[in-house]
Amino acid sequence: MPMDPASTTVVTGFDEVPRFAHGLVRDIRIRWALEEIGRPYRTRLFSAMVPRPESYRAWQPFDQVPAYEDEHVRLFESGAILLYLGEEDERLLPRDRQGRWEASAWLIAMLNSVEPMIMQLVKLDVFNGDRPWAREARPEALKAVSSRLGQVAEALGTRDWLAGRFTVADIMLVTVLRSLHHSKIVTGYPTLSAYQRRGEARPAFRQALADQLADFAGQEAT
Amino acid sequence: MPMDPASTTVVTGFDEVPRFAHGLVRDIRIRWALEEIGRPYRTRLFSAMVPRPESYRAWQPFDQVPAYEDEHVRLFESGAILLYLGEEDERLLPRDRQGRWEASAWLIAMLNSVEPMIMQLVKLDVFNGDRPWAREARPEALKAVSSRLGQVAEALGTRDWLAGRFTVADIMLVTVLRSLHHSKIVTGYPTLSAYQRRGEARPAFRQALADQLADFAGQEAT
Repeated sequence: MPMDPASTTVVTGFDEVPRFAHGLVRDIRIRWALEEIGRPYRTRLFSAMVPRPESYRAWQPFDQVPAYEDEHVRLFESGAILLYLGEEDERLLPRDRQGRWEASAWLIAMLNSVEPMIMQLVKLDVFNGDRPWAREARPEALKAVSSRLGQVAEALGTRDWLAGRFTVADIMLVTVLRSLHHSKIVTGYPTLSAYQRRGEARPAFRQALADQLADFAGQEAT
Repeated sequence: MPMDPASTTVVTGFDEVPRFAHGLVRDIRIRWALEEIGRPYRTRLFSAMVPRPESYRAWQPFDQVPAYEDEHVRLFESGAILLYLGEEDERLLPRDRQGRWEASAWLIAMLNSVEPMIMQLVKLDVFNGDRPWAREARPEALKAVSSRLGQVAEALGTRDWLAGRFTVADIMLVTVLRSLHHSKIVTGYPTLSAYQRRGEARPAFRQALADQLADFAGQEAT
């Protein structure tokens, strides 16, 4: 099991977040990748309920998680960390030029052309659900999500993974789809629904999820 | 001048878009990078007003621009294309590991942690300005933009460029800031305002902008 308190590879995460975010905090992306390649790491945990120490901003300018550090680099943004790990290990990112950049393009597409639409809907549903304007804004937000999911499903087609074989792009898409768990939207796309289950069935994902959830065990009920 | 109709490097763009998007369409990011390194390219242009040919989706799954092709790769998403070009030429992305990944992290941060908040505000202002719920949704959207711009300004500090020297991350941030041109928001952050001007003063940016605008010359007034 990659979690190792003596490791020089460090991933930041939370030990206290609102209940709906359990299993969704983005450090799960990095844990999952590290599990896939059996690379030991340790966590440095903060509470999401209070600001992180001032000094953390020099590492993560937006005061978010995850940030990452090993003996070679110190960086932030889950997408960048995944690409970095992909370059470190072929099991996460192909070595041939076209394969590598196709997977990288898909990963970035998830971050810029799919997740923002989903987060907008989640914001309306989870954070502003009680405001009348949120109800009126929802149809358009839902339409944007549906349009993008339809395009991703079409592009995925009959393949198991976005770039043909499993890559960091799949870690990104599976975790992005999971953020819609408050709704039944994904079930409207059988291709994506089966894809999400395929990702979640991977032992590396299950271990990463278990480890993130274990870190919330000490948290008071919220 | 890098534009060359015989080039094997191809960037897709538009020759017809709504007036407010002139100078903002994202192929400008790729043109700018190619100008910085003096690498010839040609464009393949579509209208934004009608869907692209069905076959284009195999290249750009979301039917957007830019997509990119050269003798080695065929890919999509401006962020991925910029990282690819950065790897091709040190003038766009440092070669040392920490420098390279820091710039990559900033580029991805712009795509996932800054641009989505800005696009949300632009959507409210430009596309839904006449709907009552857009007015009510605006304060929160503006707050999200302000918070992120404040954090970016703080991280930039007194440096000229995000990662110390000019990189593809700056092409990303300057073009992201430009998408707020319908408002005076950026002028509230003197650090960012000066930064944007510094980017826009680069000869490579000016050439890229001129070339994108020239492609709209044949368009009817809209």
